[in-house]
This record gives sequence, structure tokens and C-alpha cells, in this order.
Amino acid sequence: MSAAPLTVALLGGGTVGAQVARLLLEQSADLEARVGAPLQLVGVAVRDAARAREGIPAQLITDDAVALVARGSDIVVEVMGGIEPARTLILQAMSAGSSVITANKALLAADGGTLYRAAEEAGVDLYFEASVAGAIPLLRPLRESLAGDRVLKVLGIVNGTTNFILSKMDEEGADYADVLAQAQALGYAEADPTADVGGLDAAAKAAILAELAFHTRVTFDDVSCEGITEVTSADVDAARDMGFVIKLLAVAERTEDGAGVIVRVHPAMVPRDHPLASVRDAFNAVFVEAEAAGEMMFYGRGAGGAPTASAILGDLVAAARNRVSGGRGPGESTYAELTVRPITEAKTRYYVNLDVADRPGVLAAIAQAFADNGVSIQVVRQDGHGADAGLVVRTHLATDGALSRTIEELRRLDAVKEVLGVMRVEGEAGA
Amino acid sequence: MSAAPLTVALLGGGTVGAQVARLLLEQSADLEARVGAPLQLVGVAVRDAARAREGIPAQLITDDAVALVARGSDIVVEVMGGIEPARTLILQAMSAGSSVITANKALLAADGGTLYRAAEEAGVDLYFEASVAGAIPLLRPLRESLAGDRVLKVLGIVNGTTNFILSKMDEEGADYADVLAQAQALGYAEADPTADVGGLDAAAKAAILAELAFHTRVTFDDVSCEGITEVTSADVDAARDMGFVIKLLAVAERTEDGAGVIVRVHPAMVPRDHPLASVRDAFNAVFVEAEAAGEMMFYGRGAGGAPTASAILGDLVAAARNRVSGGRGPGESTYAELTVRPITEAKTRYYVNLDVADRPGVLAAIAQAFADNGVSIQVVRQDGHGADAGLVVRTHLATDGALSRTIEELRRLDAVKEVLGVMRVEGEAGA
Repeated sequence: MSAAPLTVALLGGGTVGAQVARLLLEQSADLEARVGAPLQLVGVAVRDAARAREGIPAQLITDDAVALVARGSDIVVEVMGGIEPARTLILQAMSAGSSVITANKALLAADGGTLYRAAEEAGVDLYFEASVAGAIPLLRPLRESLAGDRVLKVLGIVNGTTNFILSKMDEEGADYADVLAQAQALGYAEADPTADVGGLDAAAKAAILAELAFHTRVTFDDVSCEGITEVTSADVDAARDMGFVIKLLAVAERTEDGAGVIVRVHPAMVPRDHPLASVRDAFNAVFVEAEAAGEMMFYGRGAGGAPTASAILGDLVAAARNRVSGGRGPGESTYAELTVRPITEAKTRYYVNLDVADRPGVLAAIAQAFADNGVSIQVVRQDGHGADAGLVVRTHLATDGALSRTIEELRRLDAVKEVLGVMRVEGEAGA
Repeated sequence: MSAAPLTVALLGGGTVGAQVARLLLEQSADLEARVGAPLQLVGVAVRDAARAREGIPAQLITDDAVALVARGSDIVVEVMGGIEPARTLILQAMSAGSSVITANKALLAADGGTLYRAAEEAGVDLYFEASVAGAIPLLRPLRESLAGDRVLKVLGIVNGTTNFILSKMDEEGADYADVLAQAQALGYAEADPTADVGGLDAAAKAAILAELAFHTRVTFDDVSCEGITEVTSADVDAARDMGFVIKLLAVAERTEDGAGVIVRVHPAMVPRDHPLASVRDAFNAVFVEAEAAGEMMFYGRGAGGAPTASAILGDLVAAARNRVSGGRGPGESTYAELTVRPITEAKTRYYVNLDVADRPGVLAAIAQAFADNGVSIQVVRQDGHGADAGLVVRTHLATDGALSRTIEELRRLDAVKEVLGVMRVEGEAGA
């Protein structure tokens, strides 16, 4: 029944690589039935070949990745991470005629165009479902299922570490620093958490999502990025009081004129009845608004060896089926060539938390500062007791520039003791 | 750059057909860029060709579907619905060399095997993303992204009408009959709502989902089906008091021994913190548990002309790309040949609502009835005031048979005045 075996080489033998190898071996009968040919794992390149790795037969392990790639396997799976030597190995694999599956978000966000061009020249497939939101089938739907629709906006919770921290801050009223320490103790955050809490990991994923959603080349450098290190428990409390929750969002949106795209990562307040609000702990979710399809959301585990391996195996089956049938998966799609615009052009709603003097006329002065800069106020919540009064303002849609000017003016007002917090609001109906 | 135009024939000019035609014409430049060839709509077959249809050029309209199919277009899109003449036209289209996109859940659930075989013989594609959960990219992820994983369970809210009714009953405390009348007035329910409220529409979708998830032929007749007509406001209130919400679920699950699959549609109580619980109104969502990927959920609009058309266009782009590249999409996958088992073998948790006498010893007698039949009690909630006392029991996992025997014994007890409600519980952690 089946065709000749298809060979698979694996670059990387860490948590994800070991799970890929395990699934390839354990589910070989199922995979053969689904592909129409057996999949044969021919080698696993690792840094330290002497170390035993659970689930990977010792005779498959090698520390010579270059030689493994040179064998020209049908499919090469790259799960080493990092820009180099991953990029060079992937390009060599494609030259040798291998289709490539990669989970390497950093490389794709930095230099995806080079990989796409090499795949096109070599006539091979490039799949990378595991690079964003781990196990969630997300890139295939964006690339293929929505291929007949027009995406308007993508809102993603794509970093599990920061979502874990923000969930705990919301549930336990705890401070950022305490929860970060807890996350590090539990292994949810690295000893150096910068890539996660600084938003850089989310920014790489935002670039990949934006490129697929808007058919426009978007790289890491195009993404405006702000992490969660400045989010205070006061912000979290204020959000809760208003019926909101704070999430680190990766946002990619078409500009109003349709010709541009803005890609940004930052903390944002999301209404509690929005589907993204209930995405807790280390889960990921991506919310997509498309012209015809309307609103949809993809939810699941964003990281972990087995979930990531599931996404890789899905790609592997697709690439293998293409080998059997002689077809090819979708290539790069950047025909739309939208202009990437800066975050200052983004129009969002804002939350502004002020410490104000508790005396008559204060609200009028503050409202005037917003009005002077063309920013409409949607809701004001005032809880004054004694000399220290709090005032929380939520605005209608405004640009970054108009909001910044408003904040400057507020700081100059006698009535305003301190600007405690400023944050974007996303996901409100009609926003 | 582009290849020769690919021709598209459309069978059906109703709400969905009109939107498909509109998108094909409006987005022709985008579609051409994504496919690598222009898509040319060559005809729209309708019942009454004399009636003008918004968005469809009059010269494309015909009432001769057989002649349109005989033209052998590259792709035929069937959105007429119903078993015949849709089946005959699809088979004729495939014989004529056309790839087929269909949204016809009734036909697929009744006789999908025939369509798959015809596609295989003719060497054409068969896609049907729009047949389940409208705009939500769901079947492609199940068929392709999870192709390297092993699905354990699928839990879906796949009927918007019943979800609208149950959401209103939950939010407003209203009776079933009142909300149904409201849904009919708003156009969310048909004048004859049987297919929706009886669970038949959900059962057809459950069959399609189960076949894709478990690589086993499942037809409509294999699905155990119970609708929402017996759900009372007392059930809804009891659910709310316990922190649950009632949903009509389409459930497909692998049996414990791994060799069988059980497919069922029935109302179920779902914990309020489960992702499915927040799927309100006419939205759809499908929750999937897979061995490696873990839990994931797909959420979006389940019906409507434009959302359904978005799913069809996605399939159309895939089929068209295959024409350009010479590849083919995935065919039928029923190699696993699991046995379809009856619902009586399903093990679920149950909710049992009893009207009991308010006197000492009642709880002991009732607990004994559960124990006698091997059903473990998880939680008992008693609110007795006066002679009329309520007792709500939630059980651990039990079979249908054990629960039925328990209920019979409860009915014979003096202490039990009435069994007010019995319902399955799904989505609890560890369930």
C-alpha cells in the first residue's frame, strides 16, 4: 500500500526534540497511515552526543549537524533555537532538497524572508506552526483557512510566562516582583526573564502573525514593544474594579485607510467578558477579526515539549504528504505590501489613573485637559475620601500623540498630584 | 506571473451563495495573488432564475444546475443543502473533473463515504470546512494540524440556536418556551425548530467531527442524540447555584480501551470556569483534548452568510492552489476503524436534582441508593425549608446503566417525592 519510507532528520535534542522523536517512534503506524508512507527518523543532532537522552535511541544521536543535514533527508526538523547555526543549517538542508519544519520564532522574525526564498528556490516546503503559540493550530488557519478573507486585527496572548504572572497578580492581588519570584521558582520564568517580561518573545511572535495575517513582510524590528515590568498591583486593582483584566497583548492591525499595518506588544486592559480575559495562567490564545468571518479565537497550550511536538508533527505530516503527492504547501505571501506604521499612529482607548486633590473643580479641570487635546472621555470613576482622591478615566479612541500631550498637560495641573498609571484598552465592543 | 484562470461554478444562490459570489468578485485581486491564478465565477445555479439576487451578476444565474456542472469547472461550490439533488450533482461534478467544496453537513453525515470515494476515483479534492461551526477554522486543524497527534475527546457547541436559547435561559432565568418564542421572533430559530432544538443539526456535525478526529467512519445514525426541549429553568438555576452552566454539547470520545469511539449530543452541565462556558449566544466553539497537544479550543461564528462564505473561500483557495501546484488535499482517513459504541457505555459524571421529604435519615437512604448501584457521590447540596426540600447530587464517573438503575431505585424510595432533573456533567477537571 505505502510508498517508500520518507527520511526525517532532527536538529536539536532538548525538551521539544525528545518529544518529537518519541512521537515519531511511538505513533509510527498512525503516521504511516496518515501520510501514506512510513516516516523514518535517521538522526538527531545534539551539542553533547555523549549524554543519553530519554526516548531517543543512542545510535541516532550525533553531534555533527552539518553531516546530518548533508544526507538530504526528505524532511529536516529544526528545534535548536537561536539565529545561528540554525539559519545556516536550514539553508543547507533546503539546498540538499529537504523540506524544513522549524519552531524557531527568533530566526523567522529576524530573517524569515531568507528562509522563504531558499525554500522557493529549492522547491521545498517551509512550515513553522510551532513557532507561535505552541500546540495551538493557528498559523495553518491564518495561512490557509482565512486565505479567502481579509483580516482586520489580531490580538494575541502569546507568552505564557507573562500571562501566568498577570493572572496571579489579578487573582491574588500580589505584586509583580513577588509573582515573578514565584514563577521563577515554579520554572515558569527563566532566571533572566527579560525576553519574556520585556515583551521580546511576544514581539517575535507578533511579527510572524502579522506577516501571515496581512500578507506583508514584518520583522522583529517593526514591532513596537513594551513589557509588563511597569504593571503595578494598583493598575491590576483598578482594572478589576472597572471589570477589566490586564493582559500582555501582541496586536497587529490594519490601519483605517487599509494601506498600513501597525504591530505592537504592550500590556492592555481587556474587558472581563472578552474571550481573551478568561485565558489564564500559561495558556495562550489568539483572537482574530476578519471581514467576512467576524470574530474568532484559537486557544491552547503555548509551550511545553509535548504540545510543541504536536504542532511539529502536524507540519511533518503535511510536508510528508506533499512529498508523496508531489504537491507543495503555501509559500511566502507578501504581495499586499502594506506599509508598517509606527505605534504612534495606532488609535486605541486608554485608561488613565490619577491621584488628585479632593476639592471642587478638579474634575472640570481634568476634563478640560482631555478636551484640549481632542481626547474624548468615555467613563470617569472617582473615589475620593479625605485629601487623597483617586480618579480613573477611560477614553474613547485616541492616538498615542494626543494622549501623550494630554498626560503632559495633566502633570502640569495643580489638581493632579500624580499620574499613577496609563495603559491601552483593547477588546471593547466597537473598539 | 499568474497561470490561466481557474473556473468556479456555484450551486445555490441563497444567503451563503450570494456572499460567496460577492467575495469572489470583490476580492478577486487578493485571491489571484494568494492562488497564483485568477478565479473566474462561471455560473450560479438557483431554483428560481427569474429572481434578482443582490451581488450576483444576472448573466451568471441559471436554473440548470446539471448543465452548469457538466461544464467541468475547476471547482464546484455546493451550498444548496439537503441530500438530493446535492449528492447527484456533486458526484457528477467530480466525474467531470471538478474539485468540490461543500457546506452540506446533512449529506456529509449521511453519506460522506460516497463523496470521499468519488473524489479519490476522480483524483479531485473534497473540502467542507463550512459544514461544521461556520467560520471557525476547525476541520483543517483537525485534519492537518493534529495529524501527528492522537485526539482523546472533542466537546463542541456547534448549534447557535440552542446556544442562544440556553444563554438566555441562564442570563434571564426565563423558561424554555418563552426564549424559544423570542429566538423565533429574532430569526435565530426556525418556525419549525426541531432540527436545532432536537439536537439533529448538532448530531450531523458531531458525526463529521468524530470521523476526522478519530479516523473512523461515523455517520449520523451512529450519534446518540438528545435535544434541549426538556431543559427546565429549575435545571438552569440549579446549575448556576453550583457554578455550572448548561450547554448542548456534541461529544466524541475515545473509549478507555482505545479501540472504540462514542459520539453523543445532549445537554450537559459545564463548570463556569471552563472555556466552553463563556461561549454565549449564537457563537460556536469546539474544545479538543489531544494526547500531546493537551487542551485547545476553537471559537467563532457558527453561522451566517458572510462567516460561512469565509470558510468556503478558504477551501476554495486551497483547492485552487492544488490545481496550480498539481497537489491534492487530504483524502478520507478512516484507517483507525474504531468501533462505534453506544452511549450506554459512556462514563460521565451526573447531576441529579431531587424533591425529597425534609426529615432525618433521608440523605442516608438516598446515598445508599447510589452506593447500591456503584455510583460514587461527589457533592451533595441540600436546601431544605419546610416540607419541600431540594437535594442536588453530583456524581463521580458512572455509566449510563448504573445511573439509570440508581434513578429507578430513587423513584421507589418513600423519601424521594420526585426526580426533578438528571443531566450529564462535562468539562470538570479530571473528568
